[in-house]
Formats: sequence, structure tokens, C-alpha cells
Amino acid sequence: MRRILPVDITPERFERALTAFGAIVGKDWVLDDDIDRDAYADAYALGDATTHAPSAAIAPASVEEVQAVLRVANEFGIPLWPISRGKNYGYGGAAPCMPGTLVLDLGRMRRILDVDVRRAYCVVEPGVGFFDLYQFLEQEKLPLWAPMPGNCIGSVLGNALEHGTAYGPHGDRANNFCGMEVVLPDGELIRTGMGAMAGADAWHLFRYSYGPGWDQMFTQSNLGIVTKLGVWLMQEPEAAMELRMELPDEEDIGWVIETLAPLRQAGVIKSQVNIGNFMRYVMGSSQRDDWYRGEGAMPEDIQADIRHQRNVGWWGLEIMLYGYREVIEAEAAVIRRAFAAQTTNEFTTRLWKRGEPRPPFPHYGVPISFPLRIANWISPYGGHLGFSPILPPEREPLLAQLRRSRQMFRDYGFDFYGGFTLGERHVTVVNMLAYDRQDEDMVRRGRELLLALMADAKSRGYSEYRSHLAFMDEVAQSYDFNGHALARLNNKIKDALDPQGILAPGKQGIWPARYRKQG
Amino acid sequence: MRRILPVDITPERFERALTAFGAIVGKDWVLDDDIDRDAYADAYALGDATTHAPSAAIAPASVEEVQAVLRVANEFGIPLWPISRGKNYGYGGAAPCMPGTLVLDLGRMRRILDVDVRRAYCVVEPGVGFFDLYQFLEQEKLPLWAPMPGNCIGSVLGNALEHGTAYGPHGDRANNFCGMEVVLPDGELIRTGMGAMAGADAWHLFRYSYGPGWDQMFTQSNLGIVTKLGVWLMQEPEAAMELRMELPDEEDIGWVIETLAPLRQAGVIKSQVNIGNFMRYVMGSSQRDDWYRGEGAMPEDIQADIRHQRNVGWWGLEIMLYGYREVIEAEAAVIRRAFAAQTTNEFTTRLWKRGEPRPPFPHYGVPISFPLRIANWISPYGGHLGFSPILPPEREPLLAQLRRSRQMFRDYGFDFYGGFTLGERHVTVVNMLAYDRQDEDMVRRGRELLLALMADAKSRGYSEYRSHLAFMDEVAQSYDFNGHALARLNNKIKDALDPQGILAPGKQGIWPARYRKQG
Repeated sequence: MRRILPVDITPERFERALTAFGAIVGKDWVLDDDIDRDAYADAYALGDATTHAPSAAIAPASVEEVQAVLRVANEFGIPLWPISRGKNYGYGGAAPCMPGTLVLDLGRMRRILDVDVRRAYCVVEPGVGFFDLYQFLEQEKLPLWAPMPGNCIGSVLGNALEHGTAYGPHGDRANNFCGMEVVLPDGELIRTGMGAMAGADAWHLFRYSYGPGWDQMFTQSNLGIVTKLGVWLMQEPEAAMELRMELPDEEDIGWVIETLAPLRQAGVIKSQVNIGNFMRYVMGSSQRDDWYRGEGAMPEDIQADIRHQRNVGWWGLEIMLYGYREVIEAEAAVIRRAFAAQTTNEFTTRLWKRGEPRPPFPHYGVPISFPLRIANWISPYGGHLGFSPILPPEREPLLAQLRRSRQMFRDYGFDFYGGFTLGERHVTVVNMLAYDRQDEDMVRRGRELLLALMADAKSRGYSEYRSHLAFMDEVAQSYDFNGHALARLNNKIKDALDPQGILAPGKQGIWPARYRKQG
Repeated sequence: MRRILPVDITPERFERALTAFGAIVGKDWVLDDDIDRDAYADAYALGDATTHAPSAAIAPASVEEVQAVLRVANEFGIPLWPISRGKNYGYGGAAPCMPGTLVLDLGRMRRILDVDVRRAYCVVEPGVGFFDLYQFLEQEKLPLWAPMPGNCIGSVLGNALEHGTAYGPHGDRANNFCGMEVVLPDGELIRTGMGAMAGADAWHLFRYSYGPGWDQMFTQSNLGIVTKLGVWLMQEPEAAMELRMELPDEEDIGWVIETLAPLRQAGVIKSQVNIGNFMRYVMGSSQRDDWYRGEGAMPEDIQADIRHQRNVGWWGLEIMLYGYREVIEAEAAVIRRAFAAQTTNEFTTRLWKRGEPRPPFPHYGVPISFPLRIANWISPYGGHLGFSPILPPEREPLLAQLRRSRQMFRDYGFDFYGGFTLGERHVTVVNMLAYDRQDEDMVRRGRELLLALMADAKSRGYSEYRSHLAFMDEVAQSYDFNGHALARLNNKIKDALDPQGILAPGKQGIWPARYRKQG
């Protein structure tokens, strides 16, 4: 990939800046050849990857280097795109929103600090991956389980900042971190929560500070670079129980969600509940050609055949319970009773007890990466991209969304992948789109489908909590109360904290004054 | 109380502003005589109440009036002190931090909006009190329990914004609201979370939005006026269980906290645990003269006599469990087993079952106000004021804090009131100081004691999460990491959102540029 620069930066200016950055991070960590640029591009781009092409990348090794990099970036006006590990696949990977932005790769900052078993937290730098954290806890034989997402190749810190979800009781990642260290766009170093006090002992124990809280301001954000994050972990439980059920009909999702929602709200179920359609499993463990070689969406009879051959329902449901054995047995009894009022199907149960080896799944704090294989459903040059609106945990809106989305997938010629994650009081829908990046027509249809899905959700009062780089402006636009008052607030604070507009222009639709389109 | 104006406002300018405010809220709602000023003064002031004297008060009736008031305040440069109901006793009541600030009383905005049983939330305006909400739910026979603090005369919204705690699983008030409407200092109206989208259905169901989160920025804050708040409630549980134990020795607090902390962390206990010393109960139900008429702290033998006569221990512990009966029975068994390893004492248990009348206590969602009586422990002209540091739930730091604080109370001649609230991963200490406002020497000693307690905590890495108006600068100063970097961030955003410096100058130690002391 050839070097592309931001519109307002000359090659000479950029070269001088790179030299200055090299003096901070070391020349070896200025990554400026075409192979480097390819490495930081979006491997799953829906269309031309140069739309989000990085100019180059630099990789600092310490907080002090990050501060120095920001000072130089302000001096030269170089826009930076910080990444933790750059594994946010499906949402843009390591690539920046604005072409020519310089990737600031924080992957070398990879220390696990201050792990505390009794307090059940760790403090991580941006480069710490879920595999790193798991291996550390195993090696040190620490009885702590970390929240693990469905695909664990990313950063523990990055996933939390991007409002990711994970298995276990701390799966609402952005509500289960506590205490940040942040470098502001001008290079200033702050700590949030109790850590705003020098020598604070309770930095990672208490959610608040004295005065306004800033932690959430640094999530899905271009207002600061988080260099340390306190992450709440679970002490190894006495037991863990897995309850699974296959549900035969598409419409079962309605009563299932309405049965689960009050149990989740009341804390009988304390972790996310996952419900995925059969395609979720099939796409991760086979390729489309294994089942069907025609054009357009797979016909219904082929889909029925897949369910039959794999012996799965339309939906697969999994519920996890963690804690003292007698408590989770009681919780399981309550759940079984609630389901018995709706179905004669029974749960398949697995009980894990302390001392036994852990099943190798994220449900038990063990990282995996195989779900990433869905990207190759259609072709080895495949990609995937998520449509992720937030819905209430209620039958009518969920069934309506399901029917409409499924029809739209069919209309645009794509196989329908449907997943629902039940959070504390909401459902995160994930409709995953798998495509062949080399098929131009498919890429065009994919883009049109995503825009149609967004418009459809918006017309019913819903929008996404997260999106690919290519759709950040569109999703941000959907937040339009009082003539986009939220955007005006975002812009005001962006301009106050980052007057030179150097940090992650365009992230989540927030542009600094320098690059802002006049609306 | 005579009218005091802000240092930079002339009487003529103030009069013109009052006329303009009257044109918005109606003349009857401009409260400008000496009796009005008394009503908004701090009834429990530790010393001269004029230090925090309001110039007058105005009371708008709607969001539109609040917006119009802010425009006039910007035009005339009149500083405003918004209050919800002004019942934040012990921390300043309705009074403003800076003398001469105009109180903006939001108590007339008192609608309970959008109560949803299935979704288990309500949306409240600032003036809605805990008693209002309880009465509404009772009248409408809605099976919802609201979080209730120990003293329920305040505002549901105000208590949440000030990081208050309450009984029940949503007792960490600032982590259990969802979705705000806020008027910014310039009069702009925003909505946070999913409500940032017009017509959003999931406003009060999902914690986040798209991009940075602003909700916590408006807590303990002078950056906006919250006019609506989504508040999460509990659906009436199948059962509720109360576990109580009296603990004979002061040092019992060490093992008690260490026994409870892992159960709280693991979610066996889902609501706050309260542990108060015997004084907490005695001060709320008797007067000092009933027990002792001497000077200085009550002698140890009198204290022992009180415990003997009242038949209470040094500490009283209360744990609440809510939910399905079989689950809470299992949770209670786990708790009993953990305690049996430490003591032969047994819990006194009360089980409430759906259909039975609720015991009239905040533990069951029923408001009370009698704990306020501790203010009159010493005299009918009494006051009380809290010292509230955050500690880890661990024996050594807690016992050390207890011994030191108790000694300091004794040295300064005050009776020791000790309370601990066990949160998710921390302990909120409340040492309550009761004093006679008319006793000048006692007031002087009280102030010195509080400063000594703060300095002592700070020297050990701890500070307060909340404080009286009179100590806001001191507490803010204790947050000193990187040369008070937090204060610089606070100031930068304050100046960006409130350039005229009209909103709540000095709140939580944050001053607008206009009144900021050069450091």
C-alpha cells in the first residue's frame, strides 16, 4: 500500500515529523514501508481499504514516550490513531478512520501490573491481550478468572474501551473497569477515580472520585489515550454451571427473551446470555461451499438441511451461572421452572467444580480465537462486519427486527447470521455480514444492506452501539435529538481538549474543528 | 438573613437580573426576602451560615424555564446554585458554596414520568422526593420497589447525582441510573445514552450511547442541570430476608468486613451491607442529656452502660437478600457458614414474603426520615456533618482508621459515631459529627477535628467521596496526582462549557475562571 497523507500535511512536514517521532520511539519503531502500511490496513475492508489507509505507524514503549509523541504531533499537526492491539476485526481492525492518519501502536506497552487476588483486579497496559492475561494468571497459579469475549485475540483494555462484551459476571466490560491512567491530547497525564490522588490505595476499588466522573468520556473516544486500566476479575468460583437448550423455531426467540429478561434484571442470571442462530455455529466450523454453491442467500431447504445434519435448532441458547454450588443450583431451579412454563424441552447441563480442569472456553475464563473463522465462510478472501443495534428485551420489537433484518439479508443476497446477547436490561443484536472482499458486486450490496439496516432500525427508534469505521458518521448522525445536540457537546469538548485536532479524527463520528465538515 | 451579593455583581445589576428572572418564572417564584434567604441557608452550618449565604432564590417550573433562566444568567453574569430539593443535610442543605449565589430551586419540577413495570424504571424530575415516589407506586399499586436511603427526605434525582447510597440492589445510586436530560450552562438541551437519538425507545435500558459517555460528568458537578433522570427500580421480589447480628467488640469489624467482602464481590450479597456502632442507634433515638451531662467525649463506662441498657453490641450488622426464596435461602446458608467459622453468635433472621405487608423500613423500599434526629443529639440547635472517606474492605486499614478517628474524636471532645457501608468492592466510612451550632468553642473544635481527620486519611492514601460545602476546596485539594492534574482537566472543561462561570461556582472545588484563585 502506497503512502497516503492527511489532506493538510505536506510530504516534507510529514518526513520531519517522522524524524522527530523516531527520536522518541527509536527508528526501528517508525514503521513506514508499504508492508507496514498493509499490516495496519483493515484486512476485512468492505471495499477499497485505502479509504482508511494509514500513512505509517509508530510504536512507543512507555507512557513518557506517548506524552512526547503527543507533543510532537501537536507541534507538526500530525493526526494520530491510537490502537491497543488493532484486533477490532469487523469494526476496522488497526486502520484509522481518516486516510493518512498515523497509527499509534500501543502494543509494545504490554505489562500486567498490580494483580491482586483478594481485591480481584489487575491493571493492564493497552498491549495486554486476553491470551497474555490468561497465561499470566495460569503461570502464577492465581485463582482469578478474567472476562473473555467470544474471540480473544484483542486487547483487554481496548475491548473494555470500545464497550465490548464478554463472558462472566464482568462481561459488561465498560461497567467493570475501575480507575484509568490517561494521556490527554496535549500530553498531560491524569488518573481517574481515587487514583486522582497521589499514592491512592483504593484506585481500583471505587467507581467514583470527588466531582464529575471522566472514565466514560475516554471510551469510544478520541479525547485521550488510556495507558493503564484497572480491570475487575472474578475470584475462582466454587462452581460454574452451563445450561444449554436448542430451540426449534425462529419465533422461539420471543418467549425465550421474555422469560430470561426478568431473571437477568433480578440478578438470578448475572452474566450475559447468548442466543445465536444455527448459522453462527455453522459459519465458524465450515465453509459455504460445503453446503451450497448457488448465488444469493441460501434457500430455506438448504438451511433446514444444515440444522438437520448438525442436529441443532434454529437457535442455540447458553446461560452461565457462577458461584457457590448451592446458590447456583437454586438459581438453575428457578430458571428451569420459568422455562417449563413455556416448553417441554429440557436444558443440557454441565457442572464444573473447583479442582476440575476448566473446559477450554471463554465461559470459563479460557481464551479462544476460532470464531474468527466466520470471516472465511464465503472465500479465503472473506471479511465480516457487524450490524449491532440495541433493543429492549421484549418479544414484539425483537421479532420485528428479526423478520425485517432477515428479509433484508435475503433481498440483498446474503446468508442471515443472527445473534442476541441479553445484557442487564437490553439486548445487543449482532447481525454479522460475511462477504468476499474480491467480489465487487457483493461488496456494493453489502454496503447497501448495512445502510438499509441502519435506516430501518432508526425509523423504529433504535440505533447501533458500535460500528465499522466506514459507517461512523452515519451512526453518529442517527443520534439526532434536539438537532444533534450530542454532536455539538462532543465537538465542544473535543475542541477544548484537542485544539490542534490530532487525536483520532472521525472516531465515532467526532471530528476536530480542523477537519469538521460545516453542517 | 440580609442579602449578600457575589463580589462582582452590583445591587443594580442584580435587581435588573431578578426582574428578568421574574419575567420567566413569575414574580411569585422570585424568593427575595430575609425569610426566604433563611429558608435556603444551611440549617446545620458548622459556624457562620453567611459563609454560604444565598442572595435569593428563583424556582422555575419547566425545562424551558430553566433554559431561559440560564440565558438570562449568562447575560447578567449571575451565578446560580441549582438544588433538587435542597435536603442534602450534613453536606450543606440548599445553601450555595459561594456567598451571594442565587439558588435555582428545581423543587417545582416534580413529575414522575414514564413508570414502566416490566422494564422496572421510572423517569423523575429533580423535585421528586423518595416519599413522592413511594406514594405514587403505592397509589398506582405498581409492584416496584425504589432504592431508599437511610434518610428519605431528599430528591431521588439529587441523591443519585451526589453519589448517594441506598438500600436494595440499586443502592449504588450513581451506577443505577440510566439516561439523563441535561440543560448545559449555555441553555442547550441534551439527552445522554440512547436518548441522544430522537424517539429512542431504549433510553433507559442501556448504559451507553455511541461515542464518549457523559452521564458521570453531570454527577457532583457544576457542568449542567439534570432535568430528567431514568432510575432503575426493583420488581417486587418473591421474598426478602434480613440477617442481623450484634457484635460485642470494637475490633470485630475487622473479621466481619473480611468475611463479607468476598461474598459481596461474588454477588452472594447484592446490596449494601450496613454496620453501625451503637451510637448510630442511640443518637437517633435519644438525646445526650439522657445519658451524660459532662463536657467532652462520653467516658467509656457510660458508653458501656448504654450498650448494656439498650442490649446492643459495639456494632450492629444488617445484611439484606432479595429475590426468589430458594435462592436467598441458599445465599443465607453460605453467609451463615462463613460467619460460623468466626463466631458462635447467630443471625437474627426476618423473612418477608410477597403478599405480606412490608415492614416500614427503607430496606423494603419504604421511606423513613427519623435518622435525621441525630442532629439533635446535643441540643435542639444541633447540626451534623459527615466525614466520609473510601477505604478498602480489609481489616488493617479499617481498624487503623477506626482507632485513629476514634482517638481524634475523643481528643477534640466529641462522641464517636462510626458507620461502615460495604459497597461492591469498597467501604464507605461515615463518621458523623454532631454538634451544638450555638456553642462557638464546639464549632471551632468540630472544624479542627474534620480537617485533622482529612489530613490523617490523606497521609495514608485515602480521601473523601463527598463533603460539606465548607470543605469542598480542601477535599478537592487532596486529589493531587501529577500536581493536581484532575483539577486542571476539570477547569478546562468547566471553562469550555461555562465560559461565563454562572453554574454553581466552587461545587466540589471546581471554580470557573471568573472566580478561580490563581494557584
